[in-house]
Amino acid sequence: MLSRNLHKLTRPLSTSTRAAHSVGFIGLGNMGAYMASNLLSSGVSVKAFDLNPEAVNDLKQKGATVADSVESMTDCETIITMLPSSPHVQATVTTLLNAGWEGKTWIDSSTIDPIVSKNLGEALAKEGKGKIDAPVSGGVKGAAAGTLTFMVGGESSTLDAVKPYLETMGANIVHCGANGSGQTAKLCNNLAMAIQMVGTAEALNMGDSLGLDPKILAGIMNTSTSRCWSSDSYNPYPGVLEGVPAGNDYEGGFGSSLMLKDLGLATSAAGAVKSATPLGNATKEIYTMMESMDMGKKDFGAVLQFLKGNCGNKKC
Amino acid sequence: MLSRNLHKLTRPLSTSTRAAHSVGFIGLGNMGAYMASNLLSSGVSVKAFDLNPEAVNDLKQKGATVADSVESMTDCETIITMLPSSPHVQATVTTLLNAGWEGKTWIDSSTIDPIVSKNLGEALAKEGKGKIDAPVSGGVKGAAAGTLTFMVGGESSTLDAVKPYLETMGANIVHCGANGSGQTAKLCNNLAMAIQMVGTAEALNMGDSLGLDPKILAGIMNTSTSRCWSSDSYNPYPGVLEGVPAGNDYEGGFGSSLMLKDLGLATSAAGAVKSATPLGNATKEIYTMMESMDMGKKDFGAVLQFLKGNCGNKKC
Amino acid sequence: MLSRNLHKLTRPLSTSTRAAHSVGFIGLGNMGAYMASNLLSSGVSVKAFDLNPEAVNDLKQKGATVADSVESMTDCETIITMLPSSPHVQATVTTLLNAGWEGKTWIDSSTIDPIVSKNLGEALAKEGKGKIDAPVSGGVKGAAAGTLTFMVGGESSTLDAVKPYLETMGANIVHCGANGSGQTAKLCNNLAMAIQMVGTAEALNMGDSLGLDPKILAGIMNTSTSRCWSSDSYNPYPGVLEGVPAGNDYEGGFGSSLMLKDLGLATSAAGAVKSATPLGNATKEIYTMMESMDMGKKDFGAVLQFLKGNCGNKKC
Amino acid sequence: MLSRNLHKLTRPLSTSTRAAHSVGFIGLGNMGAYMASNLLSSGVSVKAFDLNPEAVNDLKQKGATVADSVESMTDCETIITMLPSSPHVQATVTTLLNAGWEGKTWIDSSTIDPIVSKNLGEALAKEGKGKIDAPVSGGVKGAAAGTLTFMVGGESSTLDAVKPYLETMGANIVHCGANGSGQTAKLCNNLAMAIQMVGTAEALNMGDSLGLDPKILAGIMNTSTSRCWSSDSYNPYPGVLEGVPAGNDYEGGFGSSLMLKDLGLATSAAGAVKSATPLGNATKEIYTMMESMDMGKKDFGAVLQFLKGNCGNKKC
Repeated sequence: MLSRNLHKLTRPLSTSTRAAHSVGFIGLGNMGAYMASNLLSSGVSVKAFDLNPEAVNDLKQKGATVADSVESMTDCETIITMLPSSPHVQATVTTLLNAGWEGKTWIDSSTIDPIVSKNLGEALAKEGKGKIDAPVSGGVKGAAAGTLTFMVGGESSTLDAVKPYLETMGANIVHCGANGSGQTAKLCNNLAMAIQMVGTAEALNMGDSLGLDPKILAGIMNTSTSRCWSSDSYNPYPGVLEGVPAGNDYEGGFGSSLMLKDLGLATSAAGAVKSATPLGNATKEIYTMMESMDMGKKDFGAVLQFLKGNCGNKKC
Repeated sequence: MLSRNLHKLTRPLSTSTRAAHSVGFIGLGNMGAYMASNLLSSGVSVKAFDLNPEAVNDLKQKGATVADSVESMTDCETIITMLPSSPHVQATVTTLLNAGWEGKTWIDSSTIDPIVSKNLGEALAKEGKGKIDAPVSGGVKGAAAGTLTFMVGGESSTLDAVKPYLETMGANIVHCGANGSGQTAKLCNNLAMAIQMVGTAEALNMGDSLGLDPKILAGIMNTSTSRCWSSDSYNPYPGVLEGVPAGNDYEGGFGSSLMLKDLGLATSAAGAVKSATPLGNATKEIYTMMESMDMGKKDFGAVLQFLKGNCGNKKC
Repeated sequence: MLSRNLHKLTRPLSTSTRAAHSVGFIGLGNMGAYMASNLLSSGVSVKAFDLNPEAVNDLKQKGATVADSVESMTDCETIITMLPSSPHVQATVTTLLNAGWEGKTWIDSSTIDPIVSKNLGEALAKEGKGKIDAPVSGGVKGAAAGTLTFMVGGESSTLDAVKPYLETMGANIVHCGANGSGQTAKLCNNLAMAIQMVGTAEALNMGDSLGLDPKILAGIMNTSTSRCWSSDSYNPYPGVLEGVPAGNDYEGGFGSSLMLKDLGLATSAAGAVKSATPLGNATKEIYTMMESMDMGKKDFGAVLQFLKGNCGNKKC
Repeated sequence: MLSRNLHKLTRPLSTSTRAAHSVGFIGLGNMGAYMASNLLSSGVSVKAFDLNPEAVNDLKQKGATVADSVESMTDCETIITMLPSSPHVQATVTTLLNAGWEGKTWIDSSTIDPIVSKNLGEALAKEGKGKIDAPVSGGVKGAAAGTLTFMVGGESSTLDAVKPYLETMGANIVHCGANGSGQTAKLCNNLAMAIQMVGTAEALNMGDSLGLDPKILAGIMNTSTSRCWSSDSYNPYPGVLEGVPAGNDYEGGFGSSLMLKDLGLATSAAGAVKSATPLGNATKEIYTMMESMDMGKKDFGAVLQFLKGNCGNKKC
């Protein structure tokens, strides 16, 4: 299926003699490095930049061209950004526009403020460029396996133009609506997920405290009206499920600090439109407390241990 | 299968010449009336009591014997209670014991405080009686269809003795553990469910406020990490799903007042063992506010309207 | 003034040849021992009971008669209880009534559920006895100095009859209203106080995190619209005030576990009448977490350290 | 005292032949109009700008010179801004700097994000200008009477230079620390105040629901450990105090929408430094709900009515 898609893709690119590199990839972190690798494996020409030289070298070994600055990527037809925060993405867009970027389409896969994302799309449109916001779910595992889900906001035509790239990196591409709505969808999902995780942890901990076996309780919940992904696929109580972070001292999952970042973005966006998220805010404060208690690197299911009073505090 | 089960049941009952009525059923409310009907339909002899004469008469027409007081049910081999609150169940147990109840097994299907339930089991055990707590999930529909889930706490031998009765009223019988643990399981499930519902409503409302189509967002959530029953089977946003209370002005579901009652029991039980439920308590307060704003009779998914500021307040 | 009051008091007592001891004091804990001492110092005849023999012996040295059981206090004209929880008070009332208590007035200075307190008052009234609920504020220091504040619920005539006793133990006697309303007043005060303490700690910690000197901030708050007792008289930030628990590693104040107990009673009473206390419940959950993290014995101002992530956890 | 201060002030100004107007005042809203009036009354030469022509004309009648744009205020020695939000202040600073502002000192009395405020101070310092953040408390009444409190962040020398101006508008000038710390102090105070108000309302409402007279309860609270400004000077229960918004259907005080704005700034600033404010966030959500229910224009003490379920909702 990939070859078919890339076939579609190469046609417009072949008419472009200008673009030495079809894709410029900026941000080779845990997720970005795998995503760029998957592009390369599918035969896409990639020019890569990151502040971390090791990350860039690793990708160079896999066939990427290396950029020594953002400014030197003006020849890239398409730019993909996978960056930590709104200001990083804003700065990168500004830099490339100021440097005279010749390309056509920007794919921002970072998770950032939906309102910032919307504004960036409008700024790029004024310059005649297309932009989609395409944050992902699926984690590092999904990035490695090329099975990410992309939640896309932006024009259909822009999405269509770069869909083959997304298909090398992900298994599901969901068009959520206009510019910015991919970010909104991502944040709404993570807000609800975080609340569900804390709720699941509260129920399992409460049952445990009252003498109910967590495995039995999880079995009931998973076949009943409190069934949810955090309980049936990612249960935070050690021993209930195999192969989840709870069984590995909460290592290797979705870190509590990252969840706190997403909750900050979500509650900020909700606040900007005066949409009440009482549990979302309460959940954000719980993850803030966990961060203060040195639990930020643990999987977000470690909230179960926080509720039990088993913090990871090194200060006490 | 039912006939096989009742065959098993009738053997011990046939040796008892004393028990004119195998089952005494106390509490013929929305749920109880259907449950007692299902017992009758399966050929079980039922003696029924309720303070509401209409409810009793309805059941009489279906073949039940009518009791004019709790005291007159001392001849019932098994007592089933389906009552609104802990004090009702406590009073009924005391009354029947004081009246010289001759039966052997008490099935309490009310949703009450797990600690009260445990104490009642111990009190009955001292008198040589068996007791299981067997609260249900499945709602009025499940009660009518005989497809309830029973969450059972108590001795296995006690459960085995009355399982055929439960099988006439429900489709799933889950043995959760010792005396009281059925109540604990029910409350843990409902605590988690309520939190998930509010979280789902917050995400859908926030998305909507930011311009994201609730149907698209629900589609993403339901195939992603915020998938849960409140979203994929009982979605609170009108128009997302067919046949759920949200599509019918939140009529005919699980009332917010009933959810408030269960949240009160859950947080009280958690408080008694000092188990933190921050989101559970915040959720309880949200349903308390909804009750103050005349939304108590609406399905608990109406929290979405509360978040939007569309209260049902008649006072303003 | 005391002698005048006791003069009033001794008149009715002098007509009673039956009452060997005017006051029976049950519950010689941290507070109760001082209160009973102050009664003795004022010349009141006291018969004392506690499960702790040391506490009883200490009071014996100060002139009290010792009771070896609650039942042996039936000759006490007035009973004062200073006990840890609702069930203790209920059991004590039941025991004394069953044993044929001959006295007239019950003063319950314990902090308990206002609804239980009201019910006890009604039960005693049926037996022709007067009862006031008279929980205190002022802490161990106030108990020692005889400067407690009594918040009294009950009939004026009952209060008048025993006011001289209260005046030996306290400096302020506030009649709050009918039977039970003393408990309500105490719990409302402590609910608001706990919320204010957490709010003060949040503001001071936030200011500190943003680089603002806590002493300067406290100075501003204390002369402005966020002025409150928790800030101007009991500031939780170490170094802001002299002579408060924050300056002594949060030792020797009002323990977080005791605050948790009062918040449990307050939110339970509010829940019973469906009165929303969203911040009260959130505060209760914070103190529940602190208890889980071994901070229960610290003064309730230690919430500032909890917010900073400096828990007292011995488990991690 | 004012004349003495202005005497000090006029000396440096008299040496400046360049500055036609000593003070440029931008933002003549409810507060700003009174503040500018007080400057004029003290003999200060004021050049004023606002988008609202009525506000400008009113001030012109009092002796101000009118500016038809921000750019035309480059000759003002000192600029005072009293604007609604961070972006307004940022835009005004940028505009004036770009237009070649010749003055020396900027006083920002708006309530804005402390981190934005700090950044603006640094940007102005690079241009050789002094800046203080000087948000106020005291409300419209304090602005009218010239009795505001200024919470000042910035260099002492900068503050000293403009203190006489502040003294015409306020009664208290508190130097909180470095650039930005005035905003931090203001937000910390308002965060704590809002939490205290909600806590006071919860206690009074709960007491009322349990049958306790709010006046009696307020009397107890105000002489006890839950004493706070929201209770003893601004009580939200109608009838407890004279001359407060609660006695006037919550008209004419500090609007709930304004409190929501400040809570948004406070929790955002706290979030930026990962300082947990669980009650602050819960309070923000309560005021978000009130806004959704058309209570935004009511004084922030109207939270008591919200807790009672008496929303101001026009939609239901």
